[in-house]
Amino acid sequence: MSEGTGAVRDRSPDGRIGVIALDGVPEIRPGDDLTALLVAALRATPGVMPLAPDDVLVVTQKIVSKAEGAIVDLTAIEPRPEVIDFAKRWDRDPRQLEVVLREARRVVRMDHGVLITETSHGFICANGGVDASNMGPSSGTVVTLLPADPDASAARIRAGVLAALGVDLPVVVSDSFGRPWRWGIVDVAIGVSGMLPLDDMRGKPDADGRIMHSTVRATADEIATAAELALGKTSRRPAAIVRGANPTRGEGRIADALMPREFDLFR
Amino acid sequence: MSEGTGAVRDRSPDGRIGVIALDGVPEIRPGDDLTALLVAALRATPGVMPLAPDDVLVVTQKIVSKAEGAIVDLTAIEPRPEVIDFAKRWDRDPRQLEVVLREARRVVRMDHGVLITETSHGFICANGGVDASNMGPSSGTVVTLLPADPDASAARIRAGVLAALGVDLPVVVSDSFGRPWRWGIVDVAIGVSGMLPLDDMRGKPDADGRIMHSTVRATADEIATAAELALGKTSRRPAAIVRGANPTRGEGRIADALMPREFDLFR
Repeated sequence: MSEGTGAVRDRSPDGRIGVIALDGVPEIRPGDDLTALLVAALRATPGVMPLAPDDVLVVTQKIVSKAEGAIVDLTAIEPRPEVIDFAKRWDRDPRQLEVVLREARRVVRMDHGVLITETSHGFICANGGVDASNMGPSSGTVVTLLPADPDASAARIRAGVLAALGVDLPVVVSDSFGRPWRWGIVDVAIGVSGMLPLDDMRGKPDADGRIMHSTVRATADEIATAAELALGKTSRRPAAIVRGANPTRGEGRIADALMPREFDLFR
Repeated sequence: MSEGTGAVRDRSPDGRIGVIALDGVPEIRPGDDLTALLVAALRATPGVMPLAPDDVLVVTQKIVSKAEGAIVDLTAIEPRPEVIDFAKRWDRDPRQLEVVLREARRVVRMDHGVLITETSHGFICANGGVDASNMGPSSGTVVTLLPADPDASAARIRAGVLAALGVDLPVVVSDSFGRPWRWGIVDVAIGVSGMLPLDDMRGKPDADGRIMHSTVRATADEIATAAELALGKTSRRPAAIVRGANPTRGEGRIADALMPREFDLFR
């Protein structure tokens, strides 16, 4: 784990969190100036400005990928034979599965129509983060990929917000992931800038003065999850401000939150 | 999955979520009337009353377990021999590990000083949800267990709030769980009452009118996680109101959120 520059603090000293979904982010197209559109949305959404010192901007993967052109038109994709068989058996689009395999560093599981892969970033997720694009009603053949470097995507947005508004606002890029053992997806962080993804409470006293031995909080993931509650899935709200979570500032990287295989006793 | 009585709706139609940690919950002791203490805290915390129709009360496991007497004094525990060896090797308390094994339905993994078990409820977690109790500075040998039936715990709190305040407030009992693949813990739901743990969006149109095939949101987990951001870990705030998440009302059970082993392709 990188050290980070900020001290570990109690989160939310006043016990209040607010999440405000941003209004007015338009449909994003490749090449759009996403940061400029987010700055306009920050300005346009009631209650957001002025930004508070403990605000975090959460931006969902889909609009980051679209703006960066991390999209693929499936009509140009030639699936390999074994994918065609699997797709036929499970009623999946073989071209989308082919894209998932191309994006994968490793196939974790391929069964029952689900393809779980480890991406080049080290994320383990269903369908490799390859998603239907929602690029308008006639976009049925376009899928989004994960951003090539989601920390860098977050850093660009952070730099743009700093330039436009003079505020160094931490940024989390989020995506919806399934999980072992439980049904349902939750949003987690896939990129960060300006904050540490984890708050390491080990060695800090708890409420009884007892030293905590094993409490590392996944703060960036928790912030991404809280944002999702405000974003919903059927409205066009792809970004939110999370206020009051008081993350540890610093030059974090999402890789710091990923567990190397040899440490992962859950596997 | 149980059907539930509510229709699936978009969450947070206005795009705003608020989390308010409750003030004034005292140190909980076995036999305390937890619901009465929570009702007093709801009344005492500025901005909570009147309760809103989309409020959810999140109560952390530790105070539920304490109030229900789901605690064990380790001085009375005789660890089995194999646990003594393991504990010595990894500098763990063998009596705590013995309690974890007694609470387990199945040992998932026992290595590197970490014991991952499946509990009687079907939760898979490190140390079987057995926790240092934080029952005051002199309580070093007392641990809390998970509540025997966290849905029933949530239902009792919900019934007590309804009786005292006339509001049918959904209740989530939360706990901090580690996860595969990522460092850090996040809070998830271990019990629910008055809401469904999942929002099944399959068959609903997305923002482009496209039918969503695989979107099941883990709403209760997301609500538990959002609450944790406000609770922090070094303050004495063991409960929170999450406002605006608009969960689907109904008689949900946490078991509905647990994936049977045969469906779990992540394993």
